[in-house]
Amino acid sequence: MRGASARDVSFAQHTASGLPSPYLLFLGDTTEAGYAKTAFGLRDWAADRCIGEYALPHATVTTGLARLSPAEARSRGAQSMVIGVANSGGFIADEWIPALLEALDAGLHIISGMHARLGEISVLREAARRAGRQLIDVREPPDAIPIGTGLKRRGKRLLTVGTDCALGKKYTALAIARAFAERGIDSDFRATGQTGIMIAGSGIPMDAVVADFAAGAAELLSPDGADDHWDIIEGQGSILHPVFSGVSMSLLHGSQPDVLVVCHDPTRTRLLGDEAFVVPSVDEIIDLTIQLGRRTNPAIRVGGVSLNTSGLTQAEALAAMAKESVRLGLPVADPIRGGPDFATLIDACLGN
Amino acid sequence: MRGASARDVSFAQHTASGLPSPYLLFLGDTTEAGYAKTAFGLRDWAADRCIGEYALPHATVTTGLARLSPAEARSRGAQSMVIGVANSGGFIADEWIPALLEALDAGLHIISGMHARLGEISVLREAARRAGRQLIDVREPPDAIPIGTGLKRRGKRLLTVGTDCALGKKYTALAIARAFAERGIDSDFRATGQTGIMIAGSGIPMDAVVADFAAGAAELLSPDGADDHWDIIEGQGSILHPVFSGVSMSLLHGSQPDVLVVCHDPTRTRLLGDEAFVVPSVDEIIDLTIQLGRRTNPAIRVGGVSLNTSGLTQAEALAAMAKESVRLGLPVADPIRGGPDFATLIDACLGN
Repeated sequence: MRGASARDVSFAQHTASGLPSPYLLFLGDTTEAGYAKTAFGLRDWAADRCIGEYALPHATVTTGLARLSPAEARSRGAQSMVIGVANSGGFIADEWIPALLEALDAGLHIISGMHARLGEISVLREAARRAGRQLIDVREPPDAIPIGTGLKRRGKRLLTVGTDCALGKKYTALAIARAFAERGIDSDFRATGQTGIMIAGSGIPMDAVVADFAAGAAELLSPDGADDHWDIIEGQGSILHPVFSGVSMSLLHGSQPDVLVVCHDPTRTRLLGDEAFVVPSVDEIIDLTIQLGRRTNPAIRVGGVSLNTSGLTQAEALAAMAKESVRLGLPVADPIRGGPDFATLIDACLGN
Repeated sequence: MRGASARDVSFAQHTASGLPSPYLLFLGDTTEAGYAKTAFGLRDWAADRCIGEYALPHATVTTGLARLSPAEARSRGAQSMVIGVANSGGFIADEWIPALLEALDAGLHIISGMHARLGEISVLREAARRAGRQLIDVREPPDAIPIGTGLKRRGKRLLTVGTDCALGKKYTALAIARAFAERGIDSDFRATGQTGIMIAGSGIPMDAVVADFAAGAAELLSPDGADDHWDIIEGQGSILHPVFSGVSMSLLHGSQPDVLVVCHDPTRTRLLGDEAFVVPSVDEIIDLTIQLGRRTNPAIRVGGVSLNTSGLTQAEALAAMAKESVRLGLPVADPIRGGPDFATLIDACLGN
C-alpha cells in the first residue's frame, strides 16, 4: 500500500469489454490496512472508476472515498461492488454475506479476487439469479486459452520482473503505463493478478492458469499490436523464486518483452514467506532473464531498475538509487517517488 | 516408440496405492504405430503388468501381446483396460465406445491418458456406475496439491531434462531407474506425464497442474526419502522451449535434483511442432539449468548426456556419442542401445 497520485491510467479499451464499472469498494469488517490492498490499489490507480466505499459498522480502515450504501452507489451510477479486502484464508466471511446480498438487491454485480469462488455460495448464487446480476470471480482464467506458439508478435512490450514476490511489480507497471500515457504514447497496462485485473478492467490471472497453457495465456494477454504500441505487462513472482518461478518463466517467454524493468526492495534480505531463501541480486535476475528471454525476443534489453524505497527516508532513498545506478550502469528510480530519476528510467525504456 | 528389453523396472511401492493393474491394452482401430505410443511404452516398461491386448477388427497395429477379449483378460486377472492409443484430437472416438462398455461389463476399470475425460461421456459414466467400476483419467491432477516450500528434502534425486519435447526424457529416466535397480540401488521412477504414470502406476501429470501449484506438485512427487534412496524423475519440456518452459522450470525447482541427465536428439535441428525455433545446444541447457537449479539445490551437477540415436546407424551412433563426450567432457550414452557407455553414465550419475 504505497501512495500514488490521483491521475489514472487510461483503460478505456479494456473496460469496454471488461469488468462492469464504476465500482463501489467493499471493505468488510477490516481493521488492518494491510488487508485492504485491493481497495487501495483501485483508489490509487482507477479513481475515475471508484464511486465510493462501503464497510461494516466496526471496520476502521477507509480509502477516504465517500461512504455510500449500495443503493446510493447504484443511484450514482455504480455497476459493481468490488470486494476490496482479503483475509488470511482468502475466504468470503459469513459476516460479509448480508452486505453482498444488499448489493445484489440494489442492482450491483459483485466482483471478487479471492481464492474462494462467489458462485460456490448458494445464497449468493440464488440472489444473483433473482436480481439478474453477475458474480464475477477474477481469479477464474478464460475458458479457451490456446497453447502458445512463441512466434514474434507486432508492437512493443515491457515486462516488470522482480527479485521476489510482492515488492512493486504491479505498481511499477502501472506507473510506467501512466508515464507513457502522459507522454502521449499509445500503450496498455496488461494485468496478470487479481488487483491488477480490477484496476485494468480486464486481464488474465496467470497463477490460476493450467501450466501447459501459461505461456499461451501470456501471448493472449499482449496480442499483436501496432508497431509503435506498447503493452506494459505486470510481472509475477521471480525467475529465482523456488515456488513461483514457473509462472515467471511462462510470463517471460509468452510476453516476449523488448524491455525489462527489474523490481527490487533493497531492505528485503529474505524472500517474503520463504525465509530460508536469500533475495537474489538484481544482477543475477538481469543476467538470467536476458539469457532466457532471448529465446522469444533476441532484442530483449533492460530499461532499468525500479527500487522500492518505501522503507527508506527520502535522503536514504536518493542515496540508494544513486549508488545502485552507478554500480549497475542503469537508470534506477522509485516510481512512487517519481522525479527526474523516474523520467530517466522512462527515457531508457523508450530507447531515448 | 523405441525398442527396449523385456525386464521391467519395479514399481511395487506405487502400484500398491496406484492404478489398478494388470492391464489389458486397448488399441482401438489404430493403423498407425505412432498413435500407439502408450501401449508400446507399457509393453516395453511394464510388461509384468500387461496381460494382453484388445483391438477393433480393422486395427493393424499390435504390441505382440496375446489378443484377449475383456472377459478373457478379466478371467486371467486383469483389473483395468488401458486406452493405449491416441488420435490427433485427443478425443475418445465413438467407434471405441462399444469396446469400452464391454470392458466395464466384464468387470474392468478403464484408464485413459487422453485430453478428453472419460467421465464426461454419459453412457460410460452410467455403465461404470452400474458395473461398480472406475473411469480413471490420469491427466487429472490430485485434488489437494499444496503450494511448494522450496525446502531441501532428504534422499537423492535425478531429473532428466531436454533440449526439446519428445526426445527421450521418459525412456531415459526409465532406463536409469532400471539400471539402478539392477545394481541393487533403492530407487523409484517418478512419472510426470500420462504414459509414465500408467507405467509407474502413479505420478502427477505436471502439464495439467495450475501454474501456482506446479512446483508444489513436483515436491509432492518426490517426497522426503532415505539418505541413500534415489528418485528418478521424468522430465518435461525444456527450459528453453518457448511454450512449455514454465512446466520445466517448476519441475526443476520443485524436484531439487542432485543430478541432471540432459536428453538430446542430434538429428533434430528444429523444435518438434515449433519449426520457427532452433533446438538449443546441450551446452546452453546445461549452463542455464545449473544456474537455475542451484536455487533449490546448490549441489546440483550434470551426470551426463542421453543421446537419442534412433535416427543413426550403430556406427554413426557410436561416433556421435564419442565425439560429444570428448567435446563436453561428460559421459554420453544412448540408454536404448545400452552397453559400456551407458554403464559409464550410470557410474557418473551415482558419483562413482
